[in-house]
Amino acid sequence: MCVMPRHRVLIPLRWSDTDAYGHINNVLFLRLIEEARVQALADKLSPPTDGPGTALLVARSEIEHRDPLLFRVAPVSIDLWVTRIGAADIDMAFEILDPAPNGDGADVVYAQAELLLVVFDQATQRPRRITKDEHALLEGWRDEPIRWRRRRPSPR
Amino acid sequence: MCVMPRHRVLIPLRWSDTDAYGHINNVLFLRLIEEARVQALADKLSPPTDGPGTALLVARSEIEHRDPLLFRVAPVSIDLWVTRIGAADIDMAFEILDPAPNGDGADVVYAQAELLLVVFDQATQRPRRITKDEHALLEGWRDEPIRWRRRRPSPR
Amino acid sequence: MCVMPRHRVLIPLRWSDTDAYGHINNVLFLRLIEEARVQALADKLSPPTDGPGTALLVARSEIEHRDPLLFRVAPVSIDLWVTRIGAADIDMAFEILDPAPNGDGADVVYAQAELLLVVFDQATQRPRRITKDEHALLEGWRDEPIRWRRRRPSPR
Amino acid sequence: MCVMPRHRVLIPLRWSDTDAYGHINNVLFLRLIEEARVQALADKLSPPTDGPGTALLVARSEIEHRDPLLFRVAPVSIDLWVTRIGAADIDMAFEILDPAPNGDGADVVYAQAELLLVVFDQATQRPRRITKDEHALLEGWRDEPIRWRRRRPSPR
Repeated sequence: MCVMPRHRVLIPLRWSDTDAYGHINNVLFLRLIEEARVQALADKLSPPTDGPGTALLVARSEIEHRDPLLFRVAPVSIDLWVTRIGAADIDMAFEILDPAPNGDGADVVYAQAELLLVVFDQATQRPRRITKDEHALLEGWRDEPIRWRRRRPSPR
Repeated sequence: MCVMPRHRVLIPLRWSDTDAYGHINNVLFLRLIEEARVQALADKLSPPTDGPGTALLVARSEIEHRDPLLFRVAPVSIDLWVTRIGAADIDMAFEILDPAPNGDGADVVYAQAELLLVVFDQATQRPRRITKDEHALLEGWRDEPIRWRRRRPSPR
Repeated sequence: MCVMPRHRVLIPLRWSDTDAYGHINNVLFLRLIEEARVQALADKLSPPTDGPGTALLVARSEIEHRDPLLFRVAPVSIDLWVTRIGAADIDMAFEILDPAPNGDGADVVYAQAELLLVVFDQATQRPRRITKDEHALLEGWRDEPIRWRRRRPSPR
Repeated sequence: MCVMPRHRVLIPLRWSDTDAYGHINNVLFLRLIEEARVQALADKLSPPTDGPGTALLVARSEIEHRDPLLFRVAPVSIDLWVTRIGAADIDMAFEILDPAPNGDGADVVYAQAELLLVVFDQATQRPRRITKDEHALLEGWRDEPIRWRRRRPSPR
């Protein structure tokens, strides 16, 4: 019954992602998420690397860390899915994890994040509406919003 | 009447902070905030750079971008202040900005952020309680929580 | 007759390796080489990531760039080999390349480099002699020194 | 008699420049040198940050490390000077150092480097000749080539 709307990407760490505390530095988690996004969307939306095409600009990031992640040669898994589709922007959720060894047991989740991404036309330098085709694609990636573990300060 | 509980630090950009879109990359904003934190606290808490001292671990980051920031040789200003003091953790708020030229008019705010920082003892590798002296110092930096501009997805 | 003493490692680029000129930034080439070295040696010398083990410290780097490298999702190949084995240090050569599509034709070489690496004992914080076993391993990776293309300023 | 053709720039370190060994990572030295170059030339050649202007592309880098550099809040000094002026390229030398405290005694030199930089027209995407004015400027920054300390493998 359960369709699998999450998209999983394998992202290698770099030895240089480790900070003076011996952990993959917290800032690098957003970097890894950026790479996952680029890799997942590389051939979907106009790729973010050609000049005057479509860019996804990050307008908001929220990330929660659970367990420290240490460098190793094997890549980490990053799951990504869509939690809201607006007219010209989307909410996208991410989990950085090691899957449970045999597919049973619990995944080890190092961090979870939710980003607000604005679809941006590089030619006009302005946000643009999501097309029908893009909407259909993104709809196929939809899943539930992040369930935060930590206390989240209430907005003022 | 108004005391100035915000701490302002000048942080130079690097040319390499610019991404393929020509902006200071959004991930780098958390990096700049990290540098501001290290610089502001360098001689306050035990500095995060000596081995078995106190580290501030980032457990949660939330950042909202407003205007794109472009590279220039002049540093940006980063304001930082404390919005909550827990037993072993604090919430800290940040604004990355250019102050209004003559001190009047509005600052240009590129991004605002709020981080949950855990006070961590590197010798025992565990969180530790905030001391009385640290509490007094942090209390002197207290100001109001971030007033987010963008829609913030409601927690599940 | 010729055995293949070069060791080839596949290293993925990151979108963030691109600089404001649209190229993989020249500094990042040394980063990619570092990752290749870590990956190739991860299970050979004591791994560079555990605390008091052996580190390879870079004492000298020389790198020559040929063609600009642009971001793409596919990894680049990095060949590495040993060009000199000293008592406590080695010269190691690197080529960053895309192999010729069908194994014939010429590889596309983006850069070549040669590094002087000092074998360093992290416990004593001093260089240490290369062991007999390490020497045998490194001997198996030996190949000819880099043939520089560009004029190399004569040493004073 | 001796004019001072070296240009000195102050470059702050970042806490994140530290690697898992606790040193400012060797790769970051080329990054610091890049920042020094951008800062020194920002208002001289057409600045490397505006789109279709002049870029200085790095064709070759050679760097020698002497002493480990540790993070601190105070910036390091980077001296830069010109050691050769070609038709469309220059050799530029760099020293990363802490000057002797009172101007007497020896500087602490962490690394020295020499780069081959190609003057590149971003509009045509080709190297371009150095102009008369640029030549005069660069001539004023001329000093002697680097005197390497370490054995430099002889070119093949």
